[in-house]
Amino acid sequence: MLSKNTLKYLTSLRQKKYRDRQEVFVAEGPKLIGDLLDAGLELQQLYTTDPALFSDYAPEIISAVELKKISNQKTPNTAFAVFDKKEAFPLKESGLILALDGVQDPGNLGTIIRLSDWFGVGHIVCTQTTADCYNPKVVQASMGSLARVQLHYLEDLSAWLAQTELPVYGGFMQGEQVYKSTLPTDAVLVMGNEGQGISSKTEAVIATKLSIPNFGTGQESLNVATATAILLSEFKRSIEM
Amino acid sequence: MLSKNTLKYLTSLRQKKYRDRQEVFVAEGPKLIGDLLDAGLELQQLYTTDPALFSDYAPEIISAVELKKISNQKTPNTAFAVFDKKEAFPLKESGLILALDGVQDPGNLGTIIRLSDWFGVGHIVCTQTTADCYNPKVVQASMGSLARVQLHYLEDLSAWLAQTELPVYGGFMQGEQVYKSTLPTDAVLVMGNEGQGISSKTEAVIATKLSIPNFGTGQESLNVATATAILLSEFKRSIEM
Repeated sequence: MLSKNTLKYLTSLRQKKYRDRQEVFVAEGPKLIGDLLDAGLELQQLYTTDPALFSDYAPEIISAVELKKISNQKTPNTAFAVFDKKEAFPLKESGLILALDGVQDPGNLGTIIRLSDWFGVGHIVCTQTTADCYNPKVVQASMGSLARVQLHYLEDLSAWLAQTELPVYGGFMQGEQVYKSTLPTDAVLVMGNEGQGISSKTEAVIATKLSIPNFGTGQESLNVATATAILLSEFKRSIEM
Repeated sequence: MLSKNTLKYLTSLRQKKYRDRQEVFVAEGPKLIGDLLDAGLELQQLYTTDPALFSDYAPEIISAVELKKISNQKTPNTAFAVFDKKEAFPLKESGLILALDGVQDPGNLGTIIRLSDWFGVGHIVCTQTTADCYNPKVVQASMGSLARVQLHYLEDLSAWLAQTELPVYGGFMQGEQVYKSTLPTDAVLVMGNEGQGISSKTEAVIATKLSIPNFGTGQESLNVATATAILLSEFKRSIEM
């Protein structure tokens, strides 16, 4: 049985300021929680409606009604966990690094973290205007990849881009056709906001603008997560596996 | 002022059976509604909170409270329209055709319709278990592309795949590395369900299994919309623009 205080604490974690204050975040569902445990993240509390789940972790058994109250999901899925935020890995300026200039939709950010992990991109640098990677929707959409991909929220992304020795590429509506570009293995790829694209301040420090050709007649743009998927794939496709 | 009956009618369109009965669907927000009007779709009714919007179409001016009642959006955006479903284009078995074997998430389907449009894919064949393309979430995520991409809900997708003269490819976890494949311009690309992938019945009629190499160490899969983006891009990238 969850106390009123616990209930209040757990639902407060929907807000960034409380997650930041406590240095924790929430993950839901047995698959995701299992993945984060396997990846070595530090568990704070675990609640489940199914006594058979996670018995090694001494979970608190709660009712479906209680789970519904604390869950951020429309259809809560048997388990709810609070994890310590992971320790930040220091930013390593080698390999392929993704930079996000104000990606605001949590579903997009979660998908981008998941596909960065797939493509072996371990570091994402981003502006403060980018969604919080510990937002519950980001955590769920990232499918455990948050354990392996480090986000760095910079005060000034353009200053960082200006000083890095890596060549800086960006995804734009107009630019060099990515299919015709020869791309290096070590680089930074910048992707912009859903509505506005890359800001002019960031654009000023991008050496090469890449674009994905439009083969259709009517659609004006691609979703930022699908565009990121295509561009990451282009950076990686010539590497021998 | 919306009558009780109108209110009931408009909210009933959240359900497929009522959309099917009336042969209509709902779109929200001035940008999307404008795009669908530009694409020639037939408007049935238009409601807006802003008298300056769509004045050529004699919209009914409603209050923000009324819009909130009929809207399917968390934050309704000034306009709500009911359109006739568009006339189906007959299926043309040439060029690149996408086939969906049970893609169930409306956001994924909408994103896939949008990127099909971008890559010039005019036809999507799919199983009855695929989400309804007129589901409000699909309509919003497809960003107007629904006007240019035709979905065909088949009774038996595998039978259709077995009879087509086009070569049939599928996206799988294990398969020929797509970066090493030489892909034809005319083909069918099959993508599967979010959790289960492509069914064994469909798999049996797929000639070539394609996979996207995993460059990371932990993520087991890609989201179906991002995987579709990468594979469509691979089919198109060698075409001269």
